[in-house]
Amino acid sequence: MLKEYLKQVRTTTPLVHNITNYVTVNDCANILIACGGAPIMADDLDDAVEITAICGGLNLNIGTLNSRTIPTMFASGKKAAELGHPILLDPVGAGASTLRTKTASDLADQLPLTVIRGNLSEIKTLATGSGGARGVDAAIADVINEDTLDGIITFAQDYAKRSGAIIAITGATDLVTTADQACVIKNGDPMMASITGSGCMLSAMTTAYLTANPNDPFMATVAAICAMGVCGEIAKAALLPGEGNATFRNRLIDAVYNLTGDTLDTQARFTLI
Amino acid sequence: MLKEYLKQVRTTTPLVHNITNYVTVNDCANILIACGGAPIMADDLDDAVEITAICGGLNLNIGTLNSRTIPTMFASGKKAAELGHPILLDPVGAGASTLRTKTASDLADQLPLTVIRGNLSEIKTLATGSGGARGVDAAIADVINEDTLDGIITFAQDYAKRSGAIIAITGATDLVTTADQACVIKNGDPMMASITGSGCMLSAMTTAYLTANPNDPFMATVAAICAMGVCGEIAKAALLPGEGNATFRNRLIDAVYNLTGDTLDTQARFTLI
Amino acid sequence: MLKEYLKQVRTTTPLVHNITNYVTVNDCANILIACGGAPIMADDLDDAVEITAICGGLNLNIGTLNSRTIPTMFASGKKAAELGHPILLDPVGAGASTLRTKTASDLADQLPLTVIRGNLSEIKTLATGSGGARGVDAAIADVINEDTLDGIITFAQDYAKRSGAIIAITGATDLVTTADQACVIKNGDPMMASITGSGCMLSAMTTAYLTANPNDPFMATVAAICAMGVCGEIAKAALLPGEGNATFRNRLIDAVYNLTGDTLDTQARFTLI
Repeated sequence: MLKEYLKQVRTTTPLVHNITNYVTVNDCANILIACGGAPIMADDLDDAVEITAICGGLNLNIGTLNSRTIPTMFASGKKAAELGHPILLDPVGAGASTLRTKTASDLADQLPLTVIRGNLSEIKTLATGSGGARGVDAAIADVINEDTLDGIITFAQDYAKRSGAIIAITGATDLVTTADQACVIKNGDPMMASITGSGCMLSAMTTAYLTANPNDPFMATVAAICAMGVCGEIAKAALLPGEGNATFRNRLIDAVYNLTGDTLDTQARFTLI
Repeated sequence: MLKEYLKQVRTTTPLVHNITNYVTVNDCANILIACGGAPIMADDLDDAVEITAICGGLNLNIGTLNSRTIPTMFASGKKAAELGHPILLDPVGAGASTLRTKTASDLADQLPLTVIRGNLSEIKTLATGSGGARGVDAAIADVINEDTLDGIITFAQDYAKRSGAIIAITGATDLVTTADQACVIKNGDPMMASITGSGCMLSAMTTAYLTANPNDPFMATVAAICAMGVCGEIAKAALLPGEGNATFRNRLIDAVYNLTGDTLDTQARFTLI
Repeated sequence: MLKEYLKQVRTTTPLVHNITNYVTVNDCANILIACGGAPIMADDLDDAVEITAICGGLNLNIGTLNSRTIPTMFASGKKAAELGHPILLDPVGAGASTLRTKTASDLADQLPLTVIRGNLSEIKTLATGSGGARGVDAAIADVINEDTLDGIITFAQDYAKRSGAIIAITGATDLVTTADQACVIKNGDPMMASITGSGCMLSAMTTAYLTANPNDPFMATVAAICAMGVCGEIAKAALLPGEGNATFRNRLIDAVYNLTGDTLDTQARFTLI
């Protein structure tokens, strides 16, 4: 069933405009191509709005936000909204600095976001104005597990309702919610936390899935997150002795490149609640 | 015969100043080292002109141009011109936004460019003021093939004459022209379009070839494009089951690192017209 | 004995704030995770000081310095100093341009740097106001070898005394000095010069070692440099026929990821003088 979402990406080659950080931008570009989409990066105010207009979706990532790129995010966001393009916000490090928290909050307030995808700490910051960010990693106290799941679903659905966006909280266990839907995903491998950019790549790829599947953004998000998790498992299984996180990164993108719909459907472990 | 151009790069270690995008900049640096050159990146107005002066060639790539780096491109370009250094322009995304089109056009107008290297859509934009860019990829209608080759050669030679630059149009088939020379190159592999940065890397490497071979920029450009295509073929042949575009990128740079003059001469498929 | 320094990194997960160049930033992030630390990148004045405050150490790298990031380096440096965090300066290209030389000199003058790590040319520029930089590589005339070692130790110790920082000069032979200590390190492989970012990655990793070992910054620096050199040897030994510098980069980071304290102690070749 998820295979249809993947197929839509591969057959329509969604063009995604990324205003993203310079740390993981190359990986984001390559994973967009790997999944079947196409990337464009443009972050200057005088350039970006036109680029937004020729793309199909917009991925906003505040990982290395700055005074020049923040206004661009708002301007491109408004253009994308005007054109009905899906917009994803990745609030990297929200809670770690005032500027990150404020920028992410303002983007969430002013733009009709389709998806907000972050770790639990970042999403808590946005939803509650607090959080417990230790930089860009989820605070340890705030992990999704059997005991905390119900509470976090309630929290995420409440924020989905208030924000109007699909809320995707990713970590060891992933959670996707709308105001009245929820999906728990248990794919992935701990080694995905051993590279920079797992989250950024997932955000870019999710934007491609949203762009290619405009009629069902919730399941498109679920499909993208399952795809990334399955590919993390494939990459880990392919790792040879002596290989580490750099090769894992390559194998992860390679796995996305080779992922078939059948493999996705066979290996995806998600539960609609 | 092309081996002499490669040998010049390996024996003179041309230092190339790159003002380029942050998406593929790491790949550009590594491929410059791989081919036998050396990279420097500097894009601040207060820094770049002096860096230009200690280098031998200048690679201008507008992939993530911005208000801070555009003036730097002009200033470094003027310094390079003053010093007689080769200058290559990679007009990434010309035609996709007004700023990209205008910046590329102005650079072409104001600087004595040695080479303009882009896909057909980008070159058409520069040459004619229009084009059909779909982001940074060549528009599908504008492909070089048996039927369109003669017309495109005429077009490129006309633009070469008007601009004074060597025109290099790369894609499935590559074309290099001056006002009265033309070369068609048929190396490469479709998988080169499955990574970000094939074009950017080629531009960086071509600048190294131009810098190391100042007396024959036309054949230096042909040699660089053949080298990249041959390495694309080598990288593809080395790809193992389960590997995808991330590993292909590594194997491509690895192939450039290991490329010998003999392999280049044996595998290059170019026709001087 | 060096294993204790590595163990401290792996057990305390030092969070390192990097204000660094966009060429090698991804590699710096991945090597920080590989060694046991965690990276944050933030370079905007309105963001960075708070990020500095939540981190444990600060890595300043001027590789692609610009008018926006230079003031950030000073502001974050002052905050780190206030908090007693270790600060490392990597003066990439000092001597290659006035701006680089001035910025590196001013950072060294105004901040209580823990370590200055560069190639011999860069360190000479900082120490003497001259140097012989050919871009970002050590000038050929300025190599550390048997004949020059004593003189360079005297020079480095003098600069260590004047600057108050540990001076780490890296190249084929590495040298770490304080005003009255010196260590010569002979690990590494020539292929480390065939990738971009060997130095940048070493600076990032050294900052993690400094942060995790606050009581002995001299030996922490020695341990980090030995670790990098040992990993360069491991990466080179693992290289297969046909592989080149791109794969070497991955294998280098992979080796850091897999490095054990025992391997470090067995393979490290350093001499305290």
